[in-house]
Amino acid sequence: MTLKQIIEGTDTRSGRLFDYFIQLLIVYSLITFSVSTLPDLSDATREFLFISQVVTVTIFTIEYLLRIFVADKKRGYVFSFYGVVDLLAILPFYMTLAVDLRAIRIIRLLRLFRLLKMARYSKAVERYRIAFKEIKEELIIFFSATCFLIYVSAVGIYYFENAVQPEQFTSIFHSLWWAVATLTTVGYGDVVPVTLGGKIFTFFILMVGLSIVAIPAGLLASALQDASRDIMEKSE
Amino acid sequence: MTLKQIIEGTDTRSGRLFDYFIQLLIVYSLITFSVSTLPDLSDATREFLFISQVVTVTIFTIEYLLRIFVADKKRGYVFSFYGVVDLLAILPFYMTLAVDLRAIRIIRLLRLFRLLKMARYSKAVERYRIAFKEIKEELIIFFSATCFLIYVSAVGIYYFENAVQPEQFTSIFHSLWWAVATLTTVGYGDVVPVTLGGKIFTFFILMVGLSIVAIPAGLLASALQDASRDIMEKSE
Amino acid sequence: MTLKQIIEGTDTRSGRLFDYFIQLLIVYSLITFSVSTLPDLSDATREFLFISQVVTVTIFTIEYLLRIFVADKKRGYVFSFYGVVDLLAILPFYMTLAVDLRAIRIIRLLRLFRLLKMARYSKAVERYRIAFKEIKEELIIFFSATCFLIYVSAVGIYYFENAVQPEQFTSIFHSLWWAVATLTTVGYGDVVPVTLGGKIFTFFILMVGLSIVAIPAGLLASALQDASRDIMEKSE
Amino acid sequence: MTLKQIIEGTDTRSGRLFDYFIQLLIVYSLITFSVSTLPDLSDATREFLFISQVVTVTIFTIEYLLRIFVADKKRGYVFSFYGVVDLLAILPFYMTLAVDLRAIRIIRLLRLFRLLKMARYSKAVERYRIAFKEIKEELIIFFSATCFLIYVSAVGIYYFENAVQPEQFTSIFHSLWWAVATLTTVGYGDVVPVTLGGKIFTFFILMVGLSIVAIPAGLLASALQDASRDIMEKSE
Repeated sequence: MTLKQIIEGTDTRSGRLFDYFIQLLIVYSLITFSVSTLPDLSDATREFLFISQVVTVTIFTIEYLLRIFVADKKRGYVFSFYGVVDLLAILPFYMTLAVDLRAIRIIRLLRLFRLLKMARYSKAVERYRIAFKEIKEELIIFFSATCFLIYVSAVGIYYFENAVQPEQFTSIFHSLWWAVATLTTVGYGDVVPVTLGGKIFTFFILMVGLSIVAIPAGLLASALQDASRDIMEKSE
Repeated sequence: MTLKQIIEGTDTRSGRLFDYFIQLLIVYSLITFSVSTLPDLSDATREFLFISQVVTVTIFTIEYLLRIFVADKKRGYVFSFYGVVDLLAILPFYMTLAVDLRAIRIIRLLRLFRLLKMARYSKAVERYRIAFKEIKEELIIFFSATCFLIYVSAVGIYYFENAVQPEQFTSIFHSLWWAVATLTTVGYGDVVPVTLGGKIFTFFILMVGLSIVAIPAGLLASALQDASRDIMEKSE
Repeated sequence: MTLKQIIEGTDTRSGRLFDYFIQLLIVYSLITFSVSTLPDLSDATREFLFISQVVTVTIFTIEYLLRIFVADKKRGYVFSFYGVVDLLAILPFYMTLAVDLRAIRIIRLLRLFRLLKMARYSKAVERYRIAFKEIKEELIIFFSATCFLIYVSAVGIYYFENAVQPEQFTSIFHSLWWAVATLTTVGYGDVVPVTLGGKIFTFFILMVGLSIVAIPAGLLASALQDASRDIMEKSE
Repeated sequence: MTLKQIIEGTDTRSGRLFDYFIQLLIVYSLITFSVSTLPDLSDATREFLFISQVVTVTIFTIEYLLRIFVADKKRGYVFSFYGVVDLLAILPFYMTLAVDLRAIRIIRLLRLFRLLKMARYSKAVERYRIAFKEIKEELIIFFSATCFLIYVSAVGIYYFENAVQPEQFTSIFHSLWWAVATLTTVGYGDVVPVTLGGKIFTFFILMVGLSIVAIPAGLLASALQDASRDIMEKSE
């Protein structure tokens, strides 16, 4: 009974300590993961990173097994969202031991699932989840409108710029990249219209685009405030 | 009677299937259109794209004729918004068969009208239409204010930068491009003020500009929420 | 009495025609002004532009004199906002005839005052004026906060980047330009931090800056909506 | 009693004059500080700047001592927020006299604390403080979400771009800089994805990112309006 309280609960002091320990370990494992991508690491560092990796995965494995052991409905936990996340957080490591080294690159990316383990401890996630759910329909509408706008922009700029800059605006697909960078106002400057028609077209597409691309932030801000209010009222 | 239900209605299973089929075909025809702009396509691909083109236009033509056949007021459909759109979605193809090849470029652009066919099936369009209508007057005010601001920015930066960068800020018209890229915060970086006066002017114009350019997003976001509420209340 | 109605009123048909004529002339004079900045103009074009200039200024002068003639309180009109604007719209031309040609450049800029003549006919201006007035205090607070933030950013980046990029971040004054371009998210890319410290500093300053720089747009959007509502209620 | 009123109060004319004098001196000292970073200053200018520095610090020191002298609870003032700020505004100067010249650079940066002295006289600060406090929790949630998103973006782009641009996207740490510049839409253009995968990834991360990064501005704008209303109601 005590073990269950420590692992699943946050009421006891040991339970909170266990939670903090796991969170710290997630952050630590992500830092070592990031460090491991640095070039020109010494052999000593590489070895240290590998040992860190083995230790953290071992602890996460023990945690996973304990959570199964402690769960009232073992099957329920294994197939629950966090059950799958906990498994995915350790699986990539065991897979890199088993399979050919060439495929490692993409498998190592799966370590990012450890970030999702973090979600269990975050109040922010719950709030975002509620906020997103509330405005799901509007976000889908916005997303399709944005895709529509980006496609139209790409076709338009392709017709204006292709003849003059065939290397930058080779096809509609190439022009899509310009459309994304421009309508989000990122504007890297690697692809820029130079024709008069292309520049006037950019002006009009931006006038329309700015109104549409910035919408979800406004929607999400007000939904997030509503979610906060709801949560505060419940906790009272 | 059954044919009418299939083509115009969404109540029957066949009606929904017909709708999905047309939507899929629109997306397919836009993808092949985009692919056809890629350079260095093999002859086999070009041929495949042309056949795709013939098939989709044939189906759209049959759809158009069926819609006329099925409509209660044939004249009304032909001159309605979607009637015109349906015609424009197939016309460019027949025109490219008839007229000289040199003019093709701009006519091919008309294929974009197929995107508008999509609007018939989209709930988003209706919502945006209501939202835009509600804040039409504010958007016009905003648009004139933005044009005013862009013109003033262009004149100002022309006087500061023309002497030092005559190739970038050749005339007020050339400076307008800088004004658009800067006030929308895209900032490509292809045209940048270098004089002290030009930089200080940019600071002040941005302080005023940021407040104005971002307004329509806020207006549209709240109008879109109102529109959603209205639609939800109606459907209850 | 009729002349007064034509010039000052908008009730009669002649009055509206007079207004449209003046507005058209303003736009025309601004276009010729912009064209006159183009390089490599032919002598014929230059002559045409000068004659255009003479004609428009003559008409604006007649308009100005008529407005004085027609006004109930002549002194009141001359020293009113629009009286001064009307004078400033014609004065630069007479000054360029009188004074040395070298100073022309800055005097020609004064032609922009013709844009302000336009304000008389614009409903947008009234609405923006009300909206700005309502949130004047917040905008001042925002403006001082932005200036504060830009200064702090410039000092910070100067200390991080000066040693490595002495030509880009020569002094705090030079760094201010980077701060303006970054905090407004324009990001031209002409001045970019390269040190680790400078990059981390940029991250934190942007986290704070984004929250502050985008505020006035939100304030202005809601104030503009309030102003619209007030005006609509009045007109009912 | 009079001295206390002059230094701490704003009711008397002398009190207000004292406040304006100190504010002017802060601005003056920050300008001379900025000027002192300019390269190629003449010896005369350097000397003038040093004397300015001595004079302002002397006055600030007198002000600090007077504030201690005048305070009801001397200890309370010294350890209060503004007491510490007043001390930090003069300390760097005395330290540069005492310690080795090499460390000067970072100590000079501490002069920025003089800006905080300014806060005492600003109504804006109070309002921002209230607004920030009200939405503190949301801002923390937003900040962790942004950090999360930036980290995920950096990991993603590292996997797409590292092979093609090993010098730009050397490690996850190097990719973080791209993630910051992109998600804030600054888009300097010094690091740009070139692979198809990287570009598509950028599109999706921007679609999610724009909704999240722009949230705090919306929250802060409405909190600031609430704060203004509260303050106005209190002053009535």
